[in-house]
Amino acid sequence: MPRYALRIEYDGAPFAGWQCQADQPSVQGTLEAALARLEPDLPAVVAAGRTDAGVHATGQVASIALTRAWEPFRLAEALNYHLKPAPVAITACAPVAEDFSARFSADWRSYTYRLICRRAPLVLDRGHAWAVRGDLDGAAMAQGAGHLIGRHDFTTFRAVHCQAASPVKTLDRCTVQEVALPAGREFRFHLRARSFLHNQVRSIVGTLERVGAGAWQPADVARALAARDRAACGTVAPACGLVMTGVGYPEDPFRDGWVEDGDAAPGLRPPPEHFWTDEGASV
Amino acid sequence: MPRYALRIEYDGAPFAGWQCQADQPSVQGTLEAALARLEPDLPAVVAAGRTDAGVHATGQVASIALTRAWEPFRLAEALNYHLKPAPVAITACAPVAEDFSARFSADWRSYTYRLICRRAPLVLDRGHAWAVRGDLDGAAMAQGAGHLIGRHDFTTFRAVHCQAASPVKTLDRCTVQEVALPAGREFRFHLRARSFLHNQVRSIVGTLERVGAGAWQPADVARALAARDRAACGTVAPACGLVMTGVGYPEDPFRDGWVEDGDAAPGLRPPPEHFWTDEGASV
Repeated sequence: MPRYALRIEYDGAPFAGWQCQADQPSVQGTLEAALARLEPDLPAVVAAGRTDAGVHATGQVASIALTRAWEPFRLAEALNYHLKPAPVAITACAPVAEDFSARFSADWRSYTYRLICRRAPLVLDRGHAWAVRGDLDGAAMAQGAGHLIGRHDFTTFRAVHCQAASPVKTLDRCTVQEVALPAGREFRFHLRARSFLHNQVRSIVGTLERVGAGAWQPADVARALAARDRAACGTVAPACGLVMTGVGYPEDPFRDGWVEDGDAAPGLRPPPEHFWTDEGASV
Repeated sequence: MPRYALRIEYDGAPFAGWQCQADQPSVQGTLEAALARLEPDLPAVVAAGRTDAGVHATGQVASIALTRAWEPFRLAEALNYHLKPAPVAITACAPVAEDFSARFSADWRSYTYRLICRRAPLVLDRGHAWAVRGDLDGAAMAQGAGHLIGRHDFTTFRAVHCQAASPVKTLDRCTVQEVALPAGREFRFHLRARSFLHNQVRSIVGTLERVGAGAWQPADVARALAARDRAACGTVAPACGLVMTGVGYPEDPFRDGWVEDGDAAPGLRPPPEHFWTDEGASV
């Protein structure tokens, strides 16, 4: 069967998550229903990341198989037509080799977490960021984040019901970006790893928020990591601030297909203004 | 009566506009209902701009009068509490002089219009930008916009039912900014004037879109302006892309009050990446 890779954007709010669940709306179920309008009885869609209920995506990647060959642009247009009015859209589509799996071929996944510090309730960003009423120390959070980069046993930052075989993961990137808003201050946490444990990003962000608020010292993050104990984790940040922004493969799966113009690098919206690294430098 | 200035953010989607209307939700009505929870029988709230149905704001300013004096931060917190769950929030609050009017004391108003070029339907920005399926020429739109800067008779760019005494207005700023998105390309139109005619911003943006699409030449904008004829206008851009971003006064009305931290300059979200001026230069 001809196979295709899809890049997918979705608003997680109305969904019980990526994965199909009985009697609950899911992104996978919504996409499979749109595919069924094109051809019946297709195999299940496979995604790079099974995002949780309420988590958004700008760069989810899925692989699908169809019985007949489609021109990629026409396939994306047909799916977008049938996906309406669900908040799910195909933003790239390309033919891929028989052995391509959006999940198993992936080299890395990237996520961005949006946190907004302000007293007033969120209005225009409601449902798209975690609102925190106190101000946070970005440099301290970046220092805390630095302790998590590299290969570690992330048991502390893993949901109790996580089904991964091993708690050892390699976090390649964990940076904190500050963004100016008309009212309030936004911090974006950018994380990248080959793969993540269940709730790992939200557990890390919830812990770094404690550092930003001054309740934890940056070095407490290293101690929590070393404890390898779920009870040592800070709070788990809410789902609505999390966005799956991209997936990397040995070769770009979209190079022979249709790609909606955008950022060259997968990322969330506009540009860095002010980045902290774990050395505290501003670049 | 003690008077206060409020800076207000709102999502225009659920409202029939700023102004109170019988049997329809309005931002003014929502704010007055919250004020009535603090003190009964207060005078009407006066806003710098009476935004249309569906138009958003990050920097609307209103003046209110209360019978007793309030600490500005506490007044903002009390109003935000009573405004919930409506998508309206107070982001600054300060005492002002007896003769301050959010409307009549204003020196200028600024608006930003968001337009996103992409084939796929909007998902995360749905309801917050005008989606256009073809690509647009930003430099051509900026060149067209240049013809509108200055003092002109804007009859062409004015709603038929506009009630302003004169169609002559001075447009101080009309720039086009390009912003990279994960999928798609965004143009932001930044306009500033002492005051605007009804539908002026949306009529200008709808006309510049025609230039961007190549249907109009930039010089056609000058011809449309000179025609002083509503029929010479391009389309009127939809309300959902428009955001009232700020109001200027001879003195900052919020200097003695509580201000939610944010951009120093009133503007919409992150920073300029790429600005075109009417000379076509990139800064």
